[in-house]
Amino acid sequence: MTVPQRLSFLTLGARDMAVLRAFYRALGWSERPGSDDDFTTYDLGGLVLALYPIGRLGAEAAPDESLPPPGWNGVTYGINVETPAGVDETFGVALTAGARPIARPVRRDWGGYSAYIADPEGNRWEIAWAPEA
Amino acid sequence: MTVPQRLSFLTLGARDMAVLRAFYRALGWSERPGSDDDFTTYDLGGLVLALYPIGRLGAEAAPDESLPPPGWNGVTYGINVETPAGVDETFGVALTAGARPIARPVRRDWGGYSAYIADPEGNRWEIAWAPEA
Repeated sequence: MTVPQRLSFLTLGARDMAVLRAFYRALGWSERPGSDDDFTTYDLGGLVLALYPIGRLGAEAAPDESLPPPGWNGVTYGINVETPAGVDETFGVALTAGARPIARPVRRDWGGYSAYIADPEGNRWEIAWAPEA
Repeated sequence: MTVPQRLSFLTLGARDMAVLRAFYRALGWSERPGSDDDFTTYDLGGLVLALYPIGRLGAEAAPDESLPPPGWNGVTYGINVETPAGVDETFGVALTAGARPIARPVRRDWGGYSAYIADPEGNRWEIAWAPEA
């Protein structure tokens, strides 16, 4: 037997649920029914993104550690789009919605084209076009 | 236009690629072709999990910040299984494979049953059964 190779839930510990919900709402994202300021979920196509207060998440997931500091947490979340022009467009839409620009769209060494934005708590989303996608 | 509500890539910044690859191999996970110690990927059913050296990831995704400290990073990755007994079994398999136990399987307030493990760099995986899944 092995550990199933899958991802069902991606849960982001949130410092301010209302601010994060407003940000993802501004991106145009739809919450799943039952979402509230204690637990907010989004269908991301095959898995669920969840926002959950970081103190409560830490009580479950890291009971013997202090909470991480604000800022980048060492992880990125990639949204692939169909064309390089789609990266430019999506980056612009995200900024208009209030995303913090981290890196403007550029060609990457791996052959793609991508940009980075941050949500109000520093979670990093890469908007990418990949030649093989 | 909105930002597509999807997740294509989940990239974990790695401090030691070889150690992390060995850990996920021990879980029984299959790497995608072309994986190496510079960039390792896994199909997780609809999205790709990637391991990438954290310094290089930070250069792209957080060029104006220092790297995060080791330890829990405020995020959890959930693997849903079909039954409560499956949580117990999978938790045991993960520990045998070298996972660090964070929380033994317990009933959760939200109605499910779950456990937490950590990989060698502190990334938190929840093994969960959810009554609605």
